[in-house]
Amino acid sequence: MPENTLDAVKALRRLEPPQRAEALSHYPPEVARAVFEQFEAPLQKEVLAFLRDHQVNRLLEDLDPDDRVRLLDTLPEPVGQALLARLSPRERRLTHKLLAFPAESAGRIMNPEYLPLRPEFLVRDALTLIHREGRAVSTVNVLPVLDSGERLVGLAMLSALVLADPGQQVEDVMLAPVPTVAPETDQEQVASLIQAADLLALPVVDDARHLLGLITVDDAMDVVQLEQEEDFARAGGSEPVDRPYFSITLLDLARARLVWLLLLALAGTMTVNVITTFESLLEQAISLSVFIPLLIGIGGNCGAQSATTVIRAMATGDINGVGIARVILRETRVGILLGSAVAVLAHVPVLLLFTPGLAVTVSLTLIAICVLANLVGSGMPMLARRLGIDPAVVSAPVVTTLVDTFGLVLYFLIAKYVMGF
Amino acid sequence: MPENTLDAVKALRRLEPPQRAEALSHYPPEVARAVFEQFEAPLQKEVLAFLRDHQVNRLLEDLDPDDRVRLLDTLPEPVGQALLARLSPRERRLTHKLLAFPAESAGRIMNPEYLPLRPEFLVRDALTLIHREGRAVSTVNVLPVLDSGERLVGLAMLSALVLADPGQQVEDVMLAPVPTVAPETDQEQVASLIQAADLLALPVVDDARHLLGLITVDDAMDVVQLEQEEDFARAGGSEPVDRPYFSITLLDLARARLVWLLLLALAGTMTVNVITTFESLLEQAISLSVFIPLLIGIGGNCGAQSATTVIRAMATGDINGVGIARVILRETRVGILLGSAVAVLAHVPVLLLFTPGLAVTVSLTLIAICVLANLVGSGMPMLARRLGIDPAVVSAPVVTTLVDTFGLVLYFLIAKYVMGF
Repeated sequence: MPENTLDAVKALRRLEPPQRAEALSHYPPEVARAVFEQFEAPLQKEVLAFLRDHQVNRLLEDLDPDDRVRLLDTLPEPVGQALLARLSPRERRLTHKLLAFPAESAGRIMNPEYLPLRPEFLVRDALTLIHREGRAVSTVNVLPVLDSGERLVGLAMLSALVLADPGQQVEDVMLAPVPTVAPETDQEQVASLIQAADLLALPVVDDARHLLGLITVDDAMDVVQLEQEEDFARAGGSEPVDRPYFSITLLDLARARLVWLLLLALAGTMTVNVITTFESLLEQAISLSVFIPLLIGIGGNCGAQSATTVIRAMATGDINGVGIARVILRETRVGILLGSAVAVLAHVPVLLLFTPGLAVTVSLTLIAICVLANLVGSGMPMLARRLGIDPAVVSAPVVTTLVDTFGLVLYFLIAKYVMGF
Repeated sequence: MPENTLDAVKALRRLEPPQRAEALSHYPPEVARAVFEQFEAPLQKEVLAFLRDHQVNRLLEDLDPDDRVRLLDTLPEPVGQALLARLSPRERRLTHKLLAFPAESAGRIMNPEYLPLRPEFLVRDALTLIHREGRAVSTVNVLPVLDSGERLVGLAMLSALVLADPGQQVEDVMLAPVPTVAPETDQEQVASLIQAADLLALPVVDDARHLLGLITVDDAMDVVQLEQEEDFARAGGSEPVDRPYFSITLLDLARARLVWLLLLALAGTMTVNVITTFESLLEQAISLSVFIPLLIGIGGNCGAQSATTVIRAMATGDINGVGIARVILRETRVGILLGSAVAVLAHVPVLLLFTPGLAVTVSLTLIAICVLANLVGSGMPMLARRLGIDPAVVSAPVVTTLVDTFGLVLYFLIAKYVMGF
């Protein structure tokens, strides 16, 4: 028997799906539930397929509504409906509430069960209430304080209540004003808000400040990890695969990458056109081709740097509300600095090993290509956000591919001009 | 006056250093402290430079020991020592304790102040104790339970205590066994452990299970964000810059990128050698040069995909303890699948637009280059970890640059063989 849930989760993640379900069904129900809760949704889905109906019902009934919704999202519609129908009326109602909100929104990851306090409660009475009724809700670390119209007026930390004078009013110890989010808010924004405010829970409210649910810090951490993995995968040019590495089939692994690879390759065929266009130039000066991989490599790296810098600044909110032009201008100036530094360093070796004309061409191209790379690298993510696309989707690999093509054009044009063909 | 700390933090982040310090000194002390706590350490350092001595002392004295250590780490040794000397003896002692542990370790981010309970305490008495003495420690949401030898035996959640029957013993409601870490454990591992276990705090213990401190979930979230930013920056080929975008000078921004750019460019000069070596081949078949950017682009993207997949699997612990060979083999098989798919798709257009020889060459190279890219892409991060280097440091851009060079060699060799020069 594993020493704790965590060890069990680790051990089970490495098993094949049938063995995983088998092992899980031999744990005591409460351990099985805790372990099941820790799995990613696609893994939970696989486990369900190998369990008996009554085991499935039990696991599903015990999940928090937000975790249940995440799982149902991975199942085909009719299967999900069938499972929903077998829940108790209470859990079914809670689940339906969350399902009404868009995917990846605050409404989907909030917990609709909470224990409300009133501002005029005495601390002593609030603690008695929590002691008596707290088991029914998923967190009592943070309690919403609502007025008589059920509108949120503050948050009472359990720790503050315990530390306070029992004769004080909840109003005197609660946190107010508190940050809140709308149910439509993107989950990534929710996570960074919880993180920035060091909160244990964030209230979700409607337009009239009626409380809809609470998002707790552990849900926020899960979101951070998930989004981080998505961004990281896309920065490397694949679709995220949210399952343990060895549980994915080779075909699925290849499929998650093939689409991106083909799209980027398709964009890359533009380079074929560019070189074909300048083929007579290449025939006259074959040594031009010697620098093609080096130049587009530097351009690609420079563009990737710029894209990640800007995406990072967006994520921390540093450049929210700042004009696109100001950011692009700044990155372009960095590009001039970098390009000039690289150009100066490259000039002498090319001059010594090749010709003065080629040395001038390569140096000028390096400056031009670094400026271009920064322009595209900073412009693409900002444009993406403006269009409502996740900037990480159009990051490094897309920028690299674009810079390749236009960098080549610049190279040949500069060569034509400098070397006088 | 900003509505809450978070708005103040946001507003101040956008100001220049002198104005930021000026604005901060006008807030009420408790607001100033809360805002100051939210800044990244390099920003805190800048603020200190513009404040008067008594304001500096006050801010420093009020910080949690772990936050203080993070700040001191950014200051030059003598300045840090001078500031330490001005702390109260108690805070100085606590700070020295943490400074003894290596950077980025659990010992550095733990909070050495806690309120210990005994297993035989009654819940009622434990709550009274917390009420009376809890203000002195930074968290009472999770309380360590120690035996008479000061060894950790479990964790008592404040919520569990409040919900429990007041006559029960702490032993009956505490969590045990609990995951613990050694003070030398890497902070990234700490964060993922807290996340995986959904804990509000993780105890740091020595070899004899004596409690050294607690790491709270908000510290863990900060670590996750920090590490995520580092990984993301390095995946894009720059050094991480942990300050607001507009507060960094152009020169610093360029400097954070130049070193990487030069290193990668230096590695890229190998491509110059490769092409120079095969220059006579290029002169005979200039159309070979047409596909150079496309082929190395596909290779680079494929390698970056493989690297990020493997780095992700390492981060989630999916391939810990698995042999390098097994992972590389798996990735190589994915490479064969991807390369074959791309080769088949590319064959007909190249055949129609160019020559049969070139079509065969390009298709064979695509397979070879995708296999190579996956080999290098999966091998490099695993090798890096074996050597004790952060895999993110050698990820995408490094892989891309290597694949460029060896991909070219493969291309020319295959061309020689197929086209018979």
